[in-house]
Amino acid sequence: MDINLERVLSRLEDLYQCGAQDDGTYTRMAYSPEDVKGRERFKGYFRKLGLKPRMDEAGNLIVRLEGEHPNLPAIVTGSHLDTVPDGGKYDGVLGCVAGLEVCETLIESGRRLKHPLEVVVFTDEEGFRFGSGLLGSGAMCGEELPISEADEDMYGMTRGEVMKAYGLDVATVPGAERKKDSMHCFLELHVEQGASLYKSRTPIGVVSSIAGVSRYEIVIKGEANHAGSTVMADRRDALVAASRFIAAVPQIVKEHGNAYTVATVGTMKVVPNSVNVIPGTCTFHLEIRDQDGKMIERIEKKLKAQLEHICKEMAEECSFERFSYHEPAPMAEWVRDSIEASVQELGIGYRVLPSGAFHDSLIMTSRFPTGMIFVPSVDGISHSRYEFTEGEDIGQGCRVLLETILKVDNMDAPC
Amino acid sequence: MDINLERVLSRLEDLYQCGAQDDGTYTRMAYSPEDVKGRERFKGYFRKLGLKPRMDEAGNLIVRLEGEHPNLPAIVTGSHLDTVPDGGKYDGVLGCVAGLEVCETLIESGRRLKHPLEVVVFTDEEGFRFGSGLLGSGAMCGEELPISEADEDMYGMTRGEVMKAYGLDVATVPGAERKKDSMHCFLELHVEQGASLYKSRTPIGVVSSIAGVSRYEIVIKGEANHAGSTVMADRRDALVAASRFIAAVPQIVKEHGNAYTVATVGTMKVVPNSVNVIPGTCTFHLEIRDQDGKMIERIEKKLKAQLEHICKEMAEECSFERFSYHEPAPMAEWVRDSIEASVQELGIGYRVLPSGAFHDSLIMTSRFPTGMIFVPSVDGISHSRYEFTEGEDIGQGCRVLLETILKVDNMDAPC
Repeated sequence: MDINLERVLSRLEDLYQCGAQDDGTYTRMAYSPEDVKGRERFKGYFRKLGLKPRMDEAGNLIVRLEGEHPNLPAIVTGSHLDTVPDGGKYDGVLGCVAGLEVCETLIESGRRLKHPLEVVVFTDEEGFRFGSGLLGSGAMCGEELPISEADEDMYGMTRGEVMKAYGLDVATVPGAERKKDSMHCFLELHVEQGASLYKSRTPIGVVSSIAGVSRYEIVIKGEANHAGSTVMADRRDALVAASRFIAAVPQIVKEHGNAYTVATVGTMKVVPNSVNVIPGTCTFHLEIRDQDGKMIERIEKKLKAQLEHICKEMAEECSFERFSYHEPAPMAEWVRDSIEASVQELGIGYRVLPSGAFHDSLIMTSRFPTGMIFVPSVDGISHSRYEFTEGEDIGQGCRVLLETILKVDNMDAPC
Repeated sequence: MDINLERVLSRLEDLYQCGAQDDGTYTRMAYSPEDVKGRERFKGYFRKLGLKPRMDEAGNLIVRLEGEHPNLPAIVTGSHLDTVPDGGKYDGVLGCVAGLEVCETLIESGRRLKHPLEVVVFTDEEGFRFGSGLLGSGAMCGEELPISEADEDMYGMTRGEVMKAYGLDVATVPGAERKKDSMHCFLELHVEQGASLYKSRTPIGVVSSIAGVSRYEIVIKGEANHAGSTVMADRRDALVAASRFIAAVPQIVKEHGNAYTVATVGTMKVVPNSVNVIPGTCTFHLEIRDQDGKMIERIEKKLKAQLEHICKEMAEECSFERFSYHEPAPMAEWVRDSIEASVQELGIGYRVLPSGAFHDSLIMTSRFPTGMIFVPSVDGISHSRYEFTEGEDIGQGCRVLLETILKVDNMDAPC
């Protein structure tokens, strides 16, 4: 029994084409006509297998292949079909297509699992349309979702209108919640979106946890003044202070973090932002990620001290405010061990590594035993048309997913 | 014979009030109703003295007090009445009111100069309305002006419309040009807009030259990537590179410049500017000012080398393009000496210093023997409602202007 790689690759290509835009890019924005087209295509594959996809109250597409014991909790696998603008062929889609491939392989080989197997396509994982993602997985886990009818997208359409056209009602989204005992475990195959596997030529990553993320808004106030008539010694230049801080970030992470700790300043707003005026105020966002909450705190403390030191020295004021925090989300140990054992049995090279990026699995860990499998992203590029994963690696990823499903099917979940 | 300080201060206040806006700020934007109101008020003072103001083709307001020898070239003094938004009470206005005060003092004391004395209010010095300033002085010096009928202001009004309503025609602006031999010299009293005089408790600055300005656009290209899944070692973060550069600017100026050399990064644009994406491109503007063109070149060379060093080390690309250059403009030696001698005779403390900021005098040096007198700006603040100069310093500035005019009146301009 083996997966059919050619079929997987051709479906990735087909689904990619569903996102074709007039300008030559490919995008399946959540709830868009392209997203609908992609989902219809995806449902078609299952219908040919005699399986009936259904949509839950949050728009999650769910296909169930009954097992020998219909009363057992389901083994669930999947990911999302929506993409960022001009996104790539693999992110999200691979996990959905791999779930389909596992179903098809099982059916073709006449192999029946004990547990039901469900393939799920989560709704609006990317979240760029309305500014908050992970909607489908959040609803499934009973999270309180930050959504309202009145949310507006970039075209001025409300979430209410958009979801209605998609066949959904914002008010009933919470109905998608599932009980803990309805799921044996959740498995997600995904591209790494980083370069760790690619650079170490490792075909499989067994995800240990999804890194926590802490985000901060930093404001530095110096004094705006004439850039010609204010001598260097009299300046309180907010951008120079900000620059000294930002330049120090990589060094501090190197000294106090581990190989996967990251800290990034991604935005910068300078006021008044005029060529002939010394910057008076700089506002920017910092984020710190690590799989250990204590490490995040440690880096935060070091960075804050550095900021305060610089601003004191330059007689400037600063504030350092955390505005969001997601705790690190470790994978369930027995699921992770099952993945690792499967990879070993298949004789494929692997590494255990954290995920720096968010996934539906981040939310799923809050309620269900969850495991993630990574395959390499060439050059670590993702969220881009240049995103690429070698066919061979895709094949190995699908095999590991199949093998893991066979393995957990024979296990009882530990209490 | 002495100037009347109370009168000067009350006129500064009156003219400030002409800029009153509905929102409580004070602004006399070039060609605006407030600018017109200020000019009408200013003309009224001269009419009371029996002097008739005229407007030239560039909108410069000119008042002439005939001397004993009408055929001698004029001693010209003045500045501008237009302000930046929410500007202060002194910038520009002081030089105009001081010229008026000299006229009035001469008339009251029955003292007649040999040369004609002209007080001039230049048009649109600030230039923020249409994006280029020094219009009136530029036209007077026969500069090729970067103006057209179609230029639009922030309200979508064209320069053609705006100037027509002001009584001007864009096409005939060059008619304001004056011949070199029509002017004995030009003198401008202005607030320093920097803190050199204020910090050293010096009442008068004798300006040696107006610093040249060289401006550059710098672009750094790294690689935008996921801020969670890209480990620190794999990053080519454009903002970290830009920050290392900006943080190094003050040190390089300190090492290689003099006390008045300045270099400033005033703007920053980060792409994509998202909290969870490593900055891929940074674009920002640098300017270098010094009274010596060779110093500007030297600093440019050092900064460029620093930028290239950083980008090479970080495997990023960069460009460093000069997009504008104004040569340093030294004051005429004999005019400057006359100011210095006048200050000494009056027994007032002074420093010889360059002007970091631009003034109409910058343009005037290109054709006429020019000198500038500075008075202190408290805390170096300018272009702001918080701009302030002590009354006592204003009085000394007016006295130095009067004394200098009396002195140059007795001199022949050297060939």
